Amino acid sequence: MTKLENYISGKWVTGDGDGQPLFNAVTGNPIAAATTKGLDFKAIVEYGRTVGNPALRKMTFYQRGNMLKTLALHLRNHLDKFYQVSYQTGATKADSWVDIEGGIGNLFANASLRRKFPDEIFCIDGESHNLGKNNTFMGTHILVPKEGVAIHINAFNFPVWGMLEKIAVNLLAGMPAIVKPATVTSYLTEAVVKEIIASGILPEGALQLICGSAGDLLDHVSSQDVVTFTGSASTGLMLRSNPKILSESVPFNMEADSLNCIVMGDDVVPGMPEWDIFVKEIRKEMTLKAGQRCTGVRRIFVPENKMEDVWKAIASSLSQTTIGNPLNEKVRMGSLAGESQRSEVRSQIAKLLASSQIVYGSLDSVEVIDADAKKGAFMSPVLLMNEKPFASKEVHEVEAFGPVSTIMPYKNSDEAIALSKLGKGSLCSTIVTADYKQAKQYVIGAASYHGRILVLNNECAKESTRPCRWRRRDGRTAGSKTLFTAHRITGIANYDYGDH
Amino acid sequence: MTKLENYISGKWVTGDGDGQPLFNAVTGNPIAAATTKGLDFKAIVEYGRTVGNPALRKMTFYQRGNMLKTLALHLRNHLDKFYQVSYQTGATKADSWVDIEGGIGNLFANASLRRKFPDEIFCIDGESHNLGKNNTFMGTHILVPKEGVAIHINAFNFPVWGMLEKIAVNLLAGMPAIVKPATVTSYLTEAVVKEIIASGILPEGALQLICGSAGDLLDHVSSQDVVTFTGSASTGLMLRSNPKILSESVPFNMEADSLNCIVMGDDVVPGMPEWDIFVKEIRKEMTLKAGQRCTGVRRIFVPENKMEDVWKAIASSLSQTTIGNPLNEKVRMGSLAGESQRSEVRSQIAKLLASSQIVYGSLDSVEVIDADAKKGAFMSPVLLMNEKPFASKEVHEVEAFGPVSTIMPYKNSDEAIALSKLGKGSLCSTIVTADYKQAKQYVIGAASYHGRILVLNNECAKESTRPCRWRRRDGRTAGSKTLFTAHRITGIANYDYGDH
Repeated sequence: MTKLENYISGKWVTGDGDGQPLFNAVTGNPIAAATTKGLDFKAIVEYGRTVGNPALRKMTFYQRGNMLKTLALHLRNHLDKFYQVSYQTGATKADSWVDIEGGIGNLFANASLRRKFPDEIFCIDGESHNLGKNNTFMGTHILVPKEGVAIHINAFNFPVWGMLEKIAVNLLAGMPAIVKPATVTSYLTEAVVKEIIASGILPEGALQLICGSAGDLLDHVSSQDVVTFTGSASTGLMLRSNPKILSESVPFNMEADSLNCIVMGDDVVPGMPEWDIFVKEIRKEMTLKAGQRCTGVRRIFVPENKMEDVWKAIASSLSQTTIGNPLNEKVRMGSLAGESQRSEVRSQIAKLLASSQIVYGSLDSVEVIDADAKKGAFMSPVLLMNEKPFASKEVHEVEAFGPVSTIMPYKNSDEAIALSKLGKGSLCSTIVTADYKQAKQYVIGAASYHGRILVLNNECAKESTRPCRWRRRDGRTAGSKTLFTAHRITGIANYDYGDH
Repeated sequence: MTKLENYISGKWVTGDGDGQPLFNAVTGNPIAAATTKGLDFKAIVEYGRTVGNPALRKMTFYQRGNMLKTLALHLRNHLDKFYQVSYQTGATKADSWVDIEGGIGNLFANASLRRKFPDEIFCIDGESHNLGKNNTFMGTHILVPKEGVAIHINAFNFPVWGMLEKIAVNLLAGMPAIVKPATVTSYLTEAVVKEIIASGILPEGALQLICGSAGDLLDHVSSQDVVTFTGSASTGLMLRSNPKILSESVPFNMEADSLNCIVMGDDVVPGMPEWDIFVKEIRKEMTLKAGQRCTGVRRIFVPENKMEDVWKAIASSLSQTTIGNPLNEKVRMGSLAGESQRSEVRSQIAKLLASSQIVYGSLDSVEVIDADAKKGAFMSPVLLMNEKPFASKEVHEVEAFGPVSTIMPYKNSDEAIALSKLGKGSLCSTIVTADYKQAKQYVIGAASYHGRILVLNNECAKESTRPCRWRRRDGRTAGSKTLFTAHRITGIANYDYGDH
């Protein structure tokens, strides 16, 4: 089997050994193998620090921003190739658009941010402060790039966007990156990095790619580096416990399991536009990218007297979703990213079934178009119901990273807020209501546990883009969409916004 | 011996057992014992969360700011008492002023910040963003208090200021605090908390005090809590490695060992005002608070051809410092905070002596006024010289937390910048120069490794307050003093400003 290549220390190289075989998620056919065996990870980190970092540091914000724009324009010339590879991950055209063009959009958005910075290698942060009565002593905050590398350990679900949204930031800031995509879909990331490197738009050392195991990469980090991780909470905990990360105080930004929830306001009844908006929203959240989205809704809270009406409406809506080969135009939901993902989702559902029951879908069978359900990693959407959410731990802790969500009853708005918080901090939450008072109460009450809260109603539904991902950068908002974003005052200058 | 009291769960209580005896640092006489044995730390955390937090959360920013102002005014009525206790820590009147009135000043400064917030229980952060063309979909960032407690584990050197500068922030933000001062000087913190609690100005549960061991306190934290630590790097590493802090992603803000440095610009020659400013600055940095300051200068970098002139001038200046009983008006430098601190400083100097030599002062003898050098924790200022700073690890790693600093030569400005960075990140640095070009070069070049860089020259020297401590809060600057503050762009949304 051909091996994916790693771009390290200025060269494309293959690792030793047979490596881990990767498969087309739709057909089950082998694609390539990934291995990093024999790579010198210490040298990779050092190369980024000594070659990539100085090259980026000496550029101004304008130059770095223009570089991102040039790169974005260049990648747009290769969309067809990226889409063809993306279909192999089980992603539909719409899913791939989010990943590929959404990722490139992030480059454009960060390129535009250059205008908020000076044409300098440093920038001033906020106002200066006169600190003496005679104006001879003052304070000014300046920002300069750190002198290390940004190591990005990414999730499997968005192999392009996951890389581009992170490197756009460190490249604008003047830091090089080492990207380690999740192995299972790393062939798509590799395809994009091939075009990036071939273009010669980035200075040498600004981007390195590792397809496969990260080896002892993190044992070589220092306080001038930063590490980001997107993936499971258990892996994240292992990484952040790395002795080097702890002893060197390396900034570690983690985005892990998130039990996002949606709440139906108690004003919503059948016949109101918000009723249909609620049902449609859940279908989208469950089926887009086959539910493999960090912000996907996992918990659905509904006034207890409307439970049956709501789950039946959701089930009816889900039944209209056509599943199958992403290359077929009729298909609305593709496969999971691989057989390993499907096994993982099934085993998570098994945990959820300790306190919940399936009200729509099946673990074992699924009807597909233009594909073989046995060979591809296909799966039916699964709607679970849990009637005692205060008595069940699993439903607030176990993330089944696929087309899976659980509907639960609540009695009053205090209960809805309390239930939302049992997720112990989520990326996002949504409340669907036409009642602004109720919306405000939920937002203020639930804010401390949620990165973002979307208030969805008939007025904004047409323009709403759902609580998709969003990040803050140096106090600014960068190209994304949200209605309310609730952040927490910590009482302390800083905390990790990424940790939820 | 009387025991210090802990204020927990609404009551003043003493711990079990004999406890750790604490001594007057000047006379060696016993003061009291500190023990937390038998305290229920889980209940203490829970009390802060369930009693203090809701009480503060329901107040608006204005109400919380006014509460801080009232508290500051109240504490000013008890200054005499605090000063009398402070002298027992070995602090002079000037040292005590920084600790006590500087701490109260922090309450005032944070009280004033209320005007930057709305008279609401939440606040808007930055501008709102229209995210759709038809203006029906927008994003707004709001800030609300976290729902836990702020646990502050503080250093021994500023028992009042160390507490007040931290709780001022969490109280304004709406979070309660649990304060654990360093045991050796906790009797001063206890004296201040007695007045705070007796005043009834803070709502019940807003402040708890632990004098002695923190027991298993950190085993009960959750993601809604925050922990701050000021002290040694080794203790900090142990605390931040706590399994609960890691698994719950608890924000952990650490300020540990800092090998701060001062650089003499190569334009500075005897006869220039900057020459005298440099020498005077070092004397102050070494002797104020007997050198027990986190921002104290530990490394002195001087053009190689001026080494002898400079160290002789510093030695001559140090020899004029009168040491002794802080109650005597002639005394300019008191004692260390206790015998244990003196032993610690001596053992750190022993490590430094592996590659440096003493050019002023003595480890064993010191002349004191109005005190017994054998009974009090007195110590002579010690100036060390290291002629090969690139070849010595210790001088950039070992912090002797007393009146101790090491002078070293540099060849050119690139070397000065490189040497400054060998401290692996410091709270602050100073360059003394009359040459603005040189100042800019140093600031931009060294910024990535320093929290703050002071440019000191004849124009600003009169108003300069030295690079004393300073913190950012939610993007704002709060009441402190600096010329340049250099922060690092991480490429990532957040990092721990406190970690150096």
